[in-house]
Amino acid sequence: MTERLDRQIAFLNEADKLKTIVRGTTLCDASRYENSAEHSWHLTLYALVLGDQAGPDVDLVRVIKMLILHDLVEIDAGDNPIFGELDHDAIAVEETKAAERIFGLLPYDLNSDLRAIWEEFEAAQTPSAKFAKSLDRFQPPMQNLMSGGGSWMDYKVTEHQIAARVGSKIAIGAPDLWTYAKARISMWFQSSGNA
Amino acid sequence: MTERLDRQIAFLNEADKLKTIVRGTTLCDASRYENSAEHSWHLTLYALVLGDQAGPDVDLVRVIKMLILHDLVEIDAGDNPIFGELDHDAIAVEETKAAERIFGLLPYDLNSDLRAIWEEFEAAQTPSAKFAKSLDRFQPPMQNLMSGGGSWMDYKVTEHQIAARVGSKIAIGAPDLWTYAKARISMWFQSSGNA
Repeated sequence: MTERLDRQIAFLNEADKLKTIVRGTTLCDASRYENSAEHSWHLTLYALVLGDQAGPDVDLVRVIKMLILHDLVEIDAGDNPIFGELDHDAIAVEETKAAERIFGLLPYDLNSDLRAIWEEFEAAQTPSAKFAKSLDRFQPPMQNLMSGGGSWMDYKVTEHQIAARVGSKIAIGAPDLWTYAKARISMWFQSSGNA
Repeated sequence: MTERLDRQIAFLNEADKLKTIVRGTTLCDASRYENSAEHSWHLTLYALVLGDQAGPDVDLVRVIKMLILHDLVEIDAGDNPIFGELDHDAIAVEETKAAERIFGLLPYDLNSDLRAIWEEFEAAQTPSAKFAKSLDRFQPPMQNLMSGGGSWMDYKVTEHQIAARVGSKIAIGAPDLWTYAKARISMWFQSSGNA
């Protein structure tokens, strides 16, 4: 029993490091960049509040579990801002290695259960994973709209680039959220003089 | 539809402020104090990993929802470190007012559902709420053991005070976790010369 608990706690202590992984998006008040732990919390709240946007085959409990776990691999692999230059194959290799090490701290049964949830999210094939991914892409533009542009300004992106890199992904699992975001992003680009 | 989404997003944007509420506990590496948003995320992970410590009447999904929501009222009412001077009646009044305002941003049905989850947590009467409260009390000592004493040093508390203020609460919903923590806290006080 104590050895099992030791492994559970070792994993939870290691997970604490996610609080130090800085993302490309700022808080709504633009006071600082957000970290991946608080982002993950925010996404679980998105799932609780926007569950009515999920299709009939989505398991919202599974979605919440995915969102709790989805960024843990960044402890080793780092965060990859969506508008940065990305080598998707290299990132996938890094993240798989990270999952091996981090979930491997857990007792066997939990390692297997939680890693399966993370892998389902990564594969983005099930309705639940698609919805979870859509929320993960929908939150940053909502923050940018509040903070005065945020990562759109940092990376000097156009409305068209947002639609291609972000919108297309939101639309897969939550089409109405993309319709909603698109109109507001368009308005923001017009009124801020960045269009 | 748009009006409903506007309210959902207004709530999610307001919730972002939880990332600025600083707690009495530091990160495991002692680099800074943690905030209530990342703490809430960490607790949802505690629930996923330590579910085997829950009694048979605990609904773990409900526990996770409680932990996502439990600190939102701190946006208005602030965090109250466990070893500080606490006026529990005044805090309860402040937090109820905060819940009214913050959950009140949501559409009626969501306000009612999410507020009921928060109230169940606060009342600490159901097995699920007791377990959620136990995890909320169990995480800070785990962090303090890693960070070199953390809030125990800041507030100059004794092992006896920890048992009275924290241990008694952990033991209600998760007795084995208190047995586990107690032994390690005792060892820490011995070896650090603070006993």
